[in-house]
Amino acid sequence: MISKKLIGEFQTILGKGNVMDEEVDRLNYSYDAAVLDPVLPAAVVRPEDSEQLGKVIALCNDNGVPVTVRGAGSNLSGGTIPQEDGVVVLTGGMNKILEINAEDMYARVQAGVVTAQLAAKVAEKGLFYPPDPGSQAVSTIAGNVAENAGGLRGLKYGVTKDYVMGLDFFNAAGELVKTGSQTVKCVTGYNLAGLMTASEGTLGIFNEITLKLVPPPQASKAMMAIYDSVEAATETVAAIIAAKIVPCTLEFMDNFTIRTVEDYAGAGLPVDAKALLLIEVDGHPAQVEEEAAKIVEIAEKIGARKIKVAKDAAEKAKIWEARRVALSALAKLKPTLVLEDATVPRSKIPAMVSGMDRIAEKHGVTIGTFGHAGDGNLHPTILTDRRDEKAWHNVELAVEEIFDVALGLGGTLSGEHGIGIAKAGFMAREVGEPSIAFSRMMKRAVDPNNILNPGKIIV
Amino acid sequence: MISKKLIGEFQTILGKGNVMDEEVDRLNYSYDAAVLDPVLPAAVVRPEDSEQLGKVIALCNDNGVPVTVRGAGSNLSGGTIPQEDGVVVLTGGMNKILEINAEDMYARVQAGVVTAQLAAKVAEKGLFYPPDPGSQAVSTIAGNVAENAGGLRGLKYGVTKDYVMGLDFFNAAGELVKTGSQTVKCVTGYNLAGLMTASEGTLGIFNEITLKLVPPPQASKAMMAIYDSVEAATETVAAIIAAKIVPCTLEFMDNFTIRTVEDYAGAGLPVDAKALLLIEVDGHPAQVEEEAAKIVEIAEKIGARKIKVAKDAAEKAKIWEARRVALSALAKLKPTLVLEDATVPRSKIPAMVSGMDRIAEKHGVTIGTFGHAGDGNLHPTILTDRRDEKAWHNVELAVEEIFDVALGLGGTLSGEHGIGIAKAGFMAREVGEPSIAFSRMMKRAVDPNNILNPGKIIV
Repeated sequence: MISKKLIGEFQTILGKGNVMDEEVDRLNYSYDAAVLDPVLPAAVVRPEDSEQLGKVIALCNDNGVPVTVRGAGSNLSGGTIPQEDGVVVLTGGMNKILEINAEDMYARVQAGVVTAQLAAKVAEKGLFYPPDPGSQAVSTIAGNVAENAGGLRGLKYGVTKDYVMGLDFFNAAGELVKTGSQTVKCVTGYNLAGLMTASEGTLGIFNEITLKLVPPPQASKAMMAIYDSVEAATETVAAIIAAKIVPCTLEFMDNFTIRTVEDYAGAGLPVDAKALLLIEVDGHPAQVEEEAAKIVEIAEKIGARKIKVAKDAAEKAKIWEARRVALSALAKLKPTLVLEDATVPRSKIPAMVSGMDRIAEKHGVTIGTFGHAGDGNLHPTILTDRRDEKAWHNVELAVEEIFDVALGLGGTLSGEHGIGIAKAGFMAREVGEPSIAFSRMMKRAVDPNNILNPGKIIV
Repeated sequence: MISKKLIGEFQTILGKGNVMDEEVDRLNYSYDAAVLDPVLPAAVVRPEDSEQLGKVIALCNDNGVPVTVRGAGSNLSGGTIPQEDGVVVLTGGMNKILEINAEDMYARVQAGVVTAQLAAKVAEKGLFYPPDPGSQAVSTIAGNVAENAGGLRGLKYGVTKDYVMGLDFFNAAGELVKTGSQTVKCVTGYNLAGLMTASEGTLGIFNEITLKLVPPPQASKAMMAIYDSVEAATETVAAIIAAKIVPCTLEFMDNFTIRTVEDYAGAGLPVDAKALLLIEVDGHPAQVEEEAAKIVEIAEKIGARKIKVAKDAAEKAKIWEARRVALSALAKLKPTLVLEDATVPRSKIPAMVSGMDRIAEKHGVTIGTFGHAGDGNLHPTILTDRRDEKAWHNVELAVEEIFDVALGLGGTLSGEHGIGIAKAGFMAREVGEPSIAFSRMMKRAVDPNNILNPGKIIV
């Protein structure tokens, strides 16, 4: 708990309406999208400008109060689960798009701007902000940067970090630290913008972020390839890349996910198919036509049962709707859904998929697998009921084995969801102790009172 | 100086032939490509594998001996100028390309691999490593990563940091720290690969680096646009971007540079032109044709005197040869050449160019300006004789004013050459004291004995 005096000081900085310490408020911000135990914070505060934000952090630092910043709380690794003696800082009051500069192709935004809203405003100006995490309708830019959020366009366009040109952030003492620039190239000082990306609120608190924009593609084409074997689907992924085609999106869906989506959305999916690939190419119209034709040829040669190329925007929307509802559809089946994102080099996708089957059988768990095949970033999704202790224990064993399979294939624990609380205990298996020790030294140096989102990534 | 005993220990680790402490050896590694005073190191060592490298660093750390790693020493900011009580570690003995993986589109290399050699090997496998710093014929991958080297393709393809997927490095204690992955997406732990990029050897010593590869463009077209006014040339740059065309290369050359190159190379350049743009577009053949035609149309409309589109590979090579020799040509004119890389948002290029003219006149210095106009990353190049004290003083004043003009236009001290020794004293003007303090805290935490390339970036 924090003292009445401190609450009063927050109120002086923020006004009474922006300091919440009733149980109902604290409950609202005790959890995020990860399957983890909720933790009630001591208070929730909502700064409305940079000055207020800086003062709040300084006050927390002076009093040793942990600070967990929260955008939409849509992260999947517990990055926004607070400490019980800590404060949740909401960024919703700092949601201004400060500048969209078409000449120099960047956008400058406050931390709390919603990703999809920025993308829409950027599109109005005839430009394109590619990162599209699944949560983009609610997630914030600062949250995306804190997690280095990915999305469906990662294969061709990269992830959030590839769009961060510069930012400023409050250090633990509440001083504003500037890094990066509005220029295309900048090597002035350490690449703190790079370091802060994916740091999950543990090294500083974002204030303003400058993002790179690009011209939008002139044309695009989506298609769905239907397979009677998983191997043929994953072989197609490799063959597309070998043909030097980089689709903007290259998604996989297994039979379990296909059936679940069909039950949920009646999208006309082939429920007897063993796997689907959902593919989109974009760019110059001539390139798009050629690449689409080449992909059809590749898929047919490898033995796809059928390839449906979207003839118009409506058909294209239908293909992506099927992919977009996958998570919601799976979530309907069971009370608890564990969405993993262990990632492998794309050539290891076949081994990863068969690994999932083996793990599901061994531990008696249900796993639906879909996701970004082109990135090697599948989402094996375990359906369970966390209240069932025995079932949950099996899920924990299965998850651990998913990590080991991915690492054994030269992969990584997390492609885009972050480490947070959920995977902190597994980090050493991938990066080794010296890497964690190095990170811990940095963290301690810049946050001596350990107030910046403690317990995440480095424990 | 370092003790005979320590030299003996280096010899035990490396063999006698790989430990050099004669004056002639020390002289060879006392300077780099920056215009700065040379410093004779105490010894020069050349490890031939990771194990030797780790042992050398541990030994230096135990004895408080500064370590400056050197690839080709081609950096322009003093990043490889050693300390007089320090050791230069050469990476030339660790120059193996360990893997080029076409399926997963990455290359894994030892620190000392030469950039152009990697690019050539990658091309043999039908893939493309885009970063092309001017020094690529000699510079090493680890040097490129340490400096976050740019090049001519930055506008479309980004810079070195955009290609670093993962790496391992020795920390100050000589332990190997792993970060990143061979996967397209990876958010496991802090983005240390991002932090290490551009850290100029001050936070760790690179061992192996994993680089992203991409499919090569199918076609390309180069052209030269000739202008009777600088304004028309810079206006063309803005108009090309406004037309949503992102050339792979978009270079500027002022009249002084044009005349100097023509004198040097007899390339048939129009010596009376006020400015040239050298432009290349690449991608799908249809896109390349359309973009090239559109650029010609734009340039003509804005008032280019003439636009020469290269009809074949020979003509294309001639255009790029003119650009490539610019630095050598300028270097012939005077004993000392100061190559700056202060960078501005591209819309500020006209103001930057007129700023250079003003500065040249005010301080009575000769500035030839050429460089990456599309990136806002021009290279104002001052020709002088450092032995002439008065002239040199004027150069120093001019350089300082170049920085201030760039910063005043929302730019940065360095687009691609790094901070090193040369610009460390100017950092605060751009990033402010809290940013330097934050960086210093990190540096001290991970390098408590301050042995890792001390005196660079953070002083």
